[in-house]
Amino acid sequence: MPSLPDMMTKLDPSGAAGGSASAAPAPADALFEALLRLGDSTLILGHRVSEWCGHAPVLEEDIALANTALDLIGQTQLWLGLAAEVEGAGRSADDLAYLRDAWDFRNLLLVERPNGDFGATLMRQFLFDAWHQPMLKGLEGSSDPRVAEIAAKAGREVAYHLDRSADLVIRLGDGTDESHRRMQAALDDLWPYTGEMLTPDATDAAMAEAGVMPDLTAIARDWHALVGDVLAQATLARPDGSYMHKGGKQGTHTEHLGYILAEMQFLQRAYPGAEW
Amino acid sequence: MPSLPDMMTKLDPSGAAGGSASAAPAPADALFEALLRLGDSTLILGHRVSEWCGHAPVLEEDIALANTALDLIGQTQLWLGLAAEVEGAGRSADDLAYLRDAWDFRNLLLVERPNGDFGATLMRQFLFDAWHQPMLKGLEGSSDPRVAEIAAKAGREVAYHLDRSADLVIRLGDGTDESHRRMQAALDDLWPYTGEMLTPDATDAAMAEAGVMPDLTAIARDWHALVGDVLAQATLARPDGSYMHKGGKQGTHTEHLGYILAEMQFLQRAYPGAEW
Repeated sequence: MPSLPDMMTKLDPSGAAGGSASAAPAPADALFEALLRLGDSTLILGHRVSEWCGHAPVLEEDIALANTALDLIGQTQLWLGLAAEVEGAGRSADDLAYLRDAWDFRNLLLVERPNGDFGATLMRQFLFDAWHQPMLKGLEGSSDPRVAEIAAKAGREVAYHLDRSADLVIRLGDGTDESHRRMQAALDDLWPYTGEMLTPDATDAAMAEAGVMPDLTAIARDWHALVGDVLAQATLARPDGSYMHKGGKQGTHTEHLGYILAEMQFLQRAYPGAEW
Repeated sequence: MPSLPDMMTKLDPSGAAGGSASAAPAPADALFEALLRLGDSTLILGHRVSEWCGHAPVLEEDIALANTALDLIGQTQLWLGLAAEVEGAGRSADDLAYLRDAWDFRNLLLVERPNGDFGATLMRQFLFDAWHQPMLKGLEGSSDPRVAEIAAKAGREVAYHLDRSADLVIRLGDGTDESHRRMQAALDDLWPYTGEMLTPDATDAAMAEAGVMPDLTAIARDWHALVGDVLAQATLARPDGSYMHKGGKQGTHTEHLGYILAEMQFLQRAYPGAEW
């Protein structure tokens, strides 16, 4: 029977009990962490996008959003399945998705941002896809064949996500005054959450050095080129600010993640072990 | 290990597995049900009102809303504590609050309505208080001394809630064009949820007959008189519609309750038995 004080030690800012350390992690630990980052980001973004189901402005967009969410959840099963295998502690992908608490999640803060309006959801999607697509392309050349295989499968889906989100960002940015205004507001709001995926930490560096994952500084170059091009076509101004939020990759999240998990994990928490 | 099909039988519209039957219940069962109705309504309204904490438009209102929420949660402890005692199955008030699922809750649908803006929250509070206050006054004369004692304590708090919510409904209704428009919209939206607390079913009738609880038709007369008077002072038009939603008292809820419980119960679900 855990006590609240026990739980609170997990929130200790020293990270002694819960987080990844800032020193270079051991290779197996680093791979587990890196796979959680991929799988948790697709899981949380998939959940966020699924919140649109039945609420999108037109039927075609409703279906497209639901399909995007399904792709992301499908990719989650693969990444978290491999993470569980690498961990070797008898946990399944479902265990990782439904039975961890917020401090053990490693998703980017960007994907836990609330949906906002349709334009804000598409802007978030584009900023993520513009990272996700070159990331998966790099992962296809991974020295770990299991990683390369998942990346090849996911890459085909994500190429389509990126086509679609870039197209809609351009159409809405270069649309009416109202749609332009909303897209600029969404971009300004989300911009400080884009630094985290482009800035390597010790885990990212260890993975790049082992040839398992691409170098994030190369991904960042691709991202900036693509985002700059799309924003120019969308007649949107790239925000000036250089302040960037960080912490999601290390398990320090915004308040939003707790609410997402409360909803997402309710069934497995209330009915432990329930199966279809 | 429960399976989904097992859970689904609880949702069977015949009510065979989960709900209160429409036939007159046995006295002890009826008392348990009636106490859940009181305690679940104060619990869910208390939770809703607590969502305002830190978000109200001015500091004094923030504190007043938080105090109202605390009063309601305190009353919940008393009502659910007595319900647990009456049930005699070894469950505590906390067990009833944190370990039941939506179909076992007996709160009024009115209290699970989303907060909306500040005016809508106050309108919901007033419509509830205008029932709650005469209800507690009636319960003070209960043939069950445990019920009478809780009602006397709660009644002092609720008299203040009603003073305050009636005053604010009048000030906002008879305020600016914008505040008047919003209060009328809130009233129109909430009105179809007011029938349930004023219309007795078999459980209510059994409790009234045993002298444990007041006759709801008498409460309804008081409610209509008070609400009519306050709405007139607030220059708000009483809605015409006679259609009334029902089901909360019997365990049939709107989608909102599930989200409330997911958030409210997360800690006890994720850390069963956790104690401060």
